[in-house]
Amino acid sequence: MSATQHTAPSGHEGADASQVYGRCFDAVVIGGGVIGLASAWQASKRGLAVAVVDPDPGHGASWAAAGMLAPVTEAHYGEEALLHLSLASARLWGAFAEELEADTGSDIGYRRCGTMLVAFDDDDRMAARQLYEFQLKLGLQVRWVSGREAREMEPNLAPGIRGALWAPNDHQVRTRHLVRALLDACQESEVAFVPERAVALEAPGGRLSAVRLASGIRLTCGAAVLAAGSWSRSVDGLPELAQVPLRPVKGVILRLAPAPLTASATPETEPPPLLTRTVRGMVQGSHVYLVPRADGSIVLGATSEERGFDTTVSVGALHDLIRLARRLVPGVTEMVLADATAGLRPATADNGPVIAAMGGDSGAEGLVLAFGHYRNGILLTPITASAVSAWLCGDPAPDEVSAFGPSRFCAPGSPGLPADGVR
Amino acid sequence: MSATQHTAPSGHEGADASQVYGRCFDAVVIGGGVIGLASAWQASKRGLAVAVVDPDPGHGASWAAAGMLAPVTEAHYGEEALLHLSLASARLWGAFAEELEADTGSDIGYRRCGTMLVAFDDDDRMAARQLYEFQLKLGLQVRWVSGREAREMEPNLAPGIRGALWAPNDHQVRTRHLVRALLDACQESEVAFVPERAVALEAPGGRLSAVRLASGIRLTCGAAVLAAGSWSRSVDGLPELAQVPLRPVKGVILRLAPAPLTASATPETEPPPLLTRTVRGMVQGSHVYLVPRADGSIVLGATSEERGFDTTVSVGALHDLIRLARRLVPGVTEMVLADATAGLRPATADNGPVIAAMGGDSGAEGLVLAFGHYRNGILLTPITASAVSAWLCGDPAPDEVSAFGPSRFCAPGSPGLPADGVR
Repeated sequence: MSATQHTAPSGHEGADASQVYGRCFDAVVIGGGVIGLASAWQASKRGLAVAVVDPDPGHGASWAAAGMLAPVTEAHYGEEALLHLSLASARLWGAFAEELEADTGSDIGYRRCGTMLVAFDDDDRMAARQLYEFQLKLGLQVRWVSGREAREMEPNLAPGIRGALWAPNDHQVRTRHLVRALLDACQESEVAFVPERAVALEAPGGRLSAVRLASGIRLTCGAAVLAAGSWSRSVDGLPELAQVPLRPVKGVILRLAPAPLTASATPETEPPPLLTRTVRGMVQGSHVYLVPRADGSIVLGATSEERGFDTTVSVGALHDLIRLARRLVPGVTEMVLADATAGLRPATADNGPVIAAMGGDSGAEGLVLAFGHYRNGILLTPITASAVSAWLCGDPAPDEVSAFGPSRFCAPGSPGLPADGVR
Repeated sequence: MSATQHTAPSGHEGADASQVYGRCFDAVVIGGGVIGLASAWQASKRGLAVAVVDPDPGHGASWAAAGMLAPVTEAHYGEEALLHLSLASARLWGAFAEELEADTGSDIGYRRCGTMLVAFDDDDRMAARQLYEFQLKLGLQVRWVSGREAREMEPNLAPGIRGALWAPNDHQVRTRHLVRALLDACQESEVAFVPERAVALEAPGGRLSAVRLASGIRLTCGAAVLAAGSWSRSVDGLPELAQVPLRPVKGVILRLAPAPLTASATPETEPPPLLTRTVRGMVQGSHVYLVPRADGSIVLGATSEERGFDTTVSVGALHDLIRLARRLVPGVTEMVLADATAGLRPATADNGPVIAAMGGDSGAEGLVLAFGHYRNGILLTPITASAVSAWLCGDPAPDEVSAFGPSRFCAPGSPGLPADGVR
């Protein structure tokens, strides 16, 4: 039992079996997270008959994610290809959000708030400055601000902070609103939901023809999309090329609500929100982030724990997150714990996703790979969905995804393989 | 929204209105916490027709309580009358648990585990030693143990602890099991549950005759028991004598589950529980307790917060509890947060409960007061229920309750009143 109270999206379970199991789908999407749902929605809008197979759509890593759309402050040394992919996807986000909101009539909380990366002490400042130099070299839009200036922008930052990176184009989206909207959008564009677990791919003669479910039932299809996050390797019948190194990295995040108003408070005296921009902190070498929503709540994250498929929230994780957040923004102490959730980031050996269409020589032509998005699943949703739906329709995908095929893990000396290239 | 996941006791709502609202009850109990439920159960077993009025029985402070039955380690300077009441109730606990378990066939987890009061640093040791001297003077069964001996008894205590009080007769009960058993016992002895809020007492001519509900309906009755914890003052028509100083003191407690076993662990290698006895800590002047259940889980508490009727769980409360617990028992870090709940302890001006039958001169003859149990509600349940049910049947109550009438708050210089006695 976790401390989580799920507000389950409703109305997406219990697809009528007779309507689903007898049909032949153009595409079966395995995994109902943001990647799978967005791909299904877009493919369906392009006229394909699509099914999403997931025992509990929307409740994997997507449900836990904070929703930072932060290519700049997530930029890491040696991950330039990923940066270009992330920037490309960030550019798609505005139109993606607009289309989704127009299709569903819902507000997904896409907020152009910018992100501040705050250095807590002098060592943190040094690390942040190095990142800043790296970002400047890459031509990213980022500015260094002094501690004083940072506190003028966000007065609830701790007095002692040493400075901050200001990335005005690193935005956010309310992840659970996004998930619900994608479920609605799929529903409205007649994507079929199959509330089961996919256990195997069938590709007789090297051409994908069906997805087998845990119940034993086969869904026949012209193509399949593997978008099951950390569970993507657990499907049998994967071609060798698709068996890339993949592991779950647990992240715990907390949702904090504003402190309840006292009896004497009136609407006129309601306090301003604690933060107005996303604040990421480097605090004595550790990382923490606070993502402020428009309603005054804050998403506080996240741990990085290598504990297999365990999704419990440990006392230590809670303690670490709160301790770091309090140092950076002391006022969080007064906020109320609304929810604690753990999700599993699907991590590959080089932290980049696998986005690729399997060709005729793979042994599973018609299989599309879209998993391993690690920390960047929400950010990379538009470009991944765009690539997946393009491939399913026989169109070319955006250039930026070309670096993210699975073959990069096969070459001698590649990430995840011993230096001598022996598998 | 709190982080709480209630496992609601079921089957106690929805009493058939026609069966309840037309009847005249011998006693209407206002408040379905442990005090009200135990009183109703025992009165019903003695042949009275009893109703319990509570919109959500069992889910107030009782649901949050840790269940320590600890008269010795709860002994405070200047509260000797309360100590005698507590010791008397502790002596009743074994038979009370036995009867309740026999009546319901359920296990309420009454565990004769003893309690250790651990001193973390030298200052804490000094405070604990003073309490020890006080306890010895009172003739309580308690022994001082060295830090080494304490760690031999409980090997997961922090290495640096300075010593401990060992109170072998301070036991525990699983509060939520107790609550469910009391609900069942009431159900089986045909106590009527009225899922509403009581708003007023009616006592025309100075004799209680009815309890008015929020819906406007009147429950006619020969007697009423006011056992609504922190809400006991919110009922209209209270006689002046019953209007004692009363305030809610918020306590946050966490329920921790053992860390999930790894794949390699077999039943043979299952780790022993972190603790086997209740451990209370004095940690740099702050208090914390860990109550180990038989299933390896631990109840960790508790904050003391003066915030009115607010029952949210703040980030600061979580942080403080976890920080203190980690100092005392570092291994809790690995445990899993299963639940975080806040309850409101009903506190009077002298920390003692109000347990009394109103006489003919009070203006509400037939009213029994049983509220204000503050930190000791679970411990004091047997003696309170025994007194209440005796009064309802016209029998004498145990001697120890005689010091806990409401008139103690009326005398000049009494607790809760200015020194000059002006009200």
